[in-house]
Amino acid sequence: MTTPQIGLIGLGTMGAALALNIAEKGFPIAVWNRTAQVTQDFHAAAGDLAGRITPTATLADLVAAISPPRSIILMVPAGPAVDEQVAALSALLGPDDLVIDAGNANFHDTNRRNAAGLPFRFMGIGVSGGEEGARHGPAIMAGGASADWARMAPVLQAIAARAEDGTPCADHMGPAGAGHFVKSVHNGIEYADMQMIAEVYGVMRDGLGMDAPAIGTTFARWNEGTLRSYLVEISGIVAQAKDAASGGPLLDVILDAAGQKGTGRWTVIEAQNLAAPIPVIEAAVMARNVSSRVAERAAGEAVFGPGPEPVTGLSTGDLEQALIAGKILCYAQGFAMMSAAGGEFGWALDMPAIARVWRAGCIIRSAMLNDMAEALAEDPGRNLMLAPFFADHLRLSLPALRKVVAAGALHGLSCPALAFGLAWFDAMRTARGTANMIQAQRDFFGLHGFKRLDGLDLPHGPWAKG
Amino acid sequence: MTTPQIGLIGLGTMGAALALNIAEKGFPIAVWNRTAQVTQDFHAAAGDLAGRITPTATLADLVAAISPPRSIILMVPAGPAVDEQVAALSALLGPDDLVIDAGNANFHDTNRRNAAGLPFRFMGIGVSGGEEGARHGPAIMAGGASADWARMAPVLQAIAARAEDGTPCADHMGPAGAGHFVKSVHNGIEYADMQMIAEVYGVMRDGLGMDAPAIGTTFARWNEGTLRSYLVEISGIVAQAKDAASGGPLLDVILDAAGQKGTGRWTVIEAQNLAAPIPVIEAAVMARNVSSRVAERAAGEAVFGPGPEPVTGLSTGDLEQALIAGKILCYAQGFAMMSAAGGEFGWALDMPAIARVWRAGCIIRSAMLNDMAEALAEDPGRNLMLAPFFADHLRLSLPALRKVVAAGALHGLSCPALAFGLAWFDAMRTARGTANMIQAQRDFFGLHGFKRLDGLDLPHGPWAKG
Repeated sequence: MTTPQIGLIGLGTMGAALALNIAEKGFPIAVWNRTAQVTQDFHAAAGDLAGRITPTATLADLVAAISPPRSIILMVPAGPAVDEQVAALSALLGPDDLVIDAGNANFHDTNRRNAAGLPFRFMGIGVSGGEEGARHGPAIMAGGASADWARMAPVLQAIAARAEDGTPCADHMGPAGAGHFVKSVHNGIEYADMQMIAEVYGVMRDGLGMDAPAIGTTFARWNEGTLRSYLVEISGIVAQAKDAASGGPLLDVILDAAGQKGTGRWTVIEAQNLAAPIPVIEAAVMARNVSSRVAERAAGEAVFGPGPEPVTGLSTGDLEQALIAGKILCYAQGFAMMSAAGGEFGWALDMPAIARVWRAGCIIRSAMLNDMAEALAEDPGRNLMLAPFFADHLRLSLPALRKVVAAGALHGLSCPALAFGLAWFDAMRTARGTANMIQAQRDFFGLHGFKRLDGLDLPHGPWAKG
Repeated sequence: MTTPQIGLIGLGTMGAALALNIAEKGFPIAVWNRTAQVTQDFHAAAGDLAGRITPTATLADLVAAISPPRSIILMVPAGPAVDEQVAALSALLGPDDLVIDAGNANFHDTNRRNAAGLPFRFMGIGVSGGEEGARHGPAIMAGGASADWARMAPVLQAIAARAEDGTPCADHMGPAGAGHFVKSVHNGIEYADMQMIAEVYGVMRDGLGMDAPAIGTTFARWNEGTLRSYLVEISGIVAQAKDAASGGPLLDVILDAAGQKGTGRWTVIEAQNLAAPIPVIEAAVMARNVSSRVAERAAGEAVFGPGPEPVTGLSTGDLEQALIAGKILCYAQGFAMMSAAGGEFGWALDMPAIARVWRAGCIIRSAMLNDMAEALAEDPGRNLMLAPFFADHLRLSLPALRKVVAAGALHGLSCPALAFGLAWFDAMRTARGTANMIQAQRDFFGLHGFKRLDGLDLPHGPWAKG
């Protein structure tokens, strides 16, 4: 066996899967985990791939086992653990060596580490797709210098998922933190896609009185059409799943309190900093927060009575169309946020390349991302909702979205993501909005001044006189 | 004249007004501004109050002109300017002296400064009400040690606005950054109140076809009822104002692009950090961001056609009730966020005291804050929407809010704050929500696990087997 040029630190679920994937694609790899037993167990279980994997007992052993120039992938928990490993490696690596943080870092941390004058080269890559993806083909969003991307591309593209057209879903997003930034927007969109699905699930369950298996077959049917995607597919599967204990639908015994690891929150905070609204994602984060307040929601129902009411005049076809519209609006917001970030941070984020990377391997993979990649390639700076393909889709699907949001409002079916997304759309397609009232108020109480439609230089109301 | 014990740095609009207010209430005060001419002009224009004001030429002169223990109010732009003055004062003041930052600081900065081991005592106070308030009676939210509050209370309560029952609208919120924190929530609610008014204005203008004067008299009428408040009052005034240039309504010539100074954004970011949703405020910040994208909105209208359509079956009475409901939900969210902050930062924020301080002097002053103070006094930890008084109001007003949000969704009238607020309410009053779908998805793709309604310890679906 040839000496590895690649190393990997951290053999947790994701790290182990990624190491096996790399070895399977023909790259010898040295591995190290802080707990020696983990390293040994991993190697022992690697089967046919064990021959390409060099287990090492110390960090110095790991470095010694790799032939320079070395490329070492970090797969340790985001935060202090990354700083610790970076510090330890600083004593062991040289200027031609490369460290790749493949964890879920906040992109600000990746920028900070990269700017800190490390004695080695540094990249941050976002890896999406969970354990299954890491093992058999994740989506990879890489940030770092172009030369370092060129060096790692053969490995990263070999281990990545492939889109239907055969393109590897691994690409260079931009310098330093750009990869982790794009990954965080991916995660925000993941929250949003899941929330919109939960909302139409709720309308089917509480508004249309459908049981879980019927809802499941509905999702499965939708997965044959425009909505074809991993999340709609698995929604069909989980809704049809039976609970071993009760014999009834599994969905009906799961507590309605959603956890979060904070990555959706990071995305929302960054959108605020960029003044680039992502209301569908904001609503998804709100909904998860509220879902966890189980006792408070029960107290609310005790005071106001049960909320959701049956709905008439609404079909599953309407819900399918509403989900299509909501999804387009959500992605339009996400891509607009990435455009704003590109400007703010001086990155040349390649919007069609991002859409292409997301087509396979990651949780939000969907058929629609093919069309998005094409629409963004036509005009990367244009808001996605204005691209002719998606504008046509919206014209067809918006009436259903309007119907669903209105029904939700009238009948107590909480649809924050669909409702907030629609309100954003209506504001974004209205040339004459209502902020003239806000400007008038601000001038009245604070003499903030306003611009006029006629261009005259009269920035205050009559109250400013005297 | 007696030697001042109070000094003030920064004679901009707010600082000058505050200094005159302090002098008028009988407290001698020494003042200093970086530009000497500003100090001289201020003193020359102080009229009858000049005798109580000592202008000084240097920072050392200012300190020398105040008899110890000194209390020096900083009214300089938030950010580096505060740090500069704090550093300069560190060489001049002793441990019994007190510096009070009365600017619009981010409360994290106030906490940081307070924790930095300054050689003097330090407070941060939020002052609301604009120039008019600062001159004749602002609302004051003070943060700092209890002993320092006790020392400053005679001055701050003397210069503050008075509620209708005569109570001064100045109170101690908690340690260090607590005052600036409460002020930032105030500012977020200010954004939200203004946005909800803009939304019902839009429905009247575009949905009901009312002209600005008719809208103005409607707001004026609402100001006689439950909605009585400064912002509804001035909305009536600005909507009825004539434009000198065109002879038509002033509102109709003001550009619909709202500015912001970032304080609403801070509040939203902090709510994210606290996992305490404030959707009405989030929607208000979103709406301001979108309003500033004038060209993009025009492009949207060019693609999709004009948005807002006339609405039938909706009355101004419905809009009044919708605004009442939206306002209750907005404040319920704001107070819940402050409760969460109290826990997170170890503050004992006094919810009824906050409501009482906001009753006069500040931009969001309203009759409803009296009732909120009473409801919060009954049970400060309870969500405001569950207090019997407001639950009764909501039962009456929610049907109208539902009607307005549904009409907005169906007819393209963007009402993000009302819609997102309602969706939050419906989630908060539904014991059985829809996040069980999200938990099932998360378990399917990431084995995150879920809790069950029946309490059984079976945290995974059938996909986890084998």
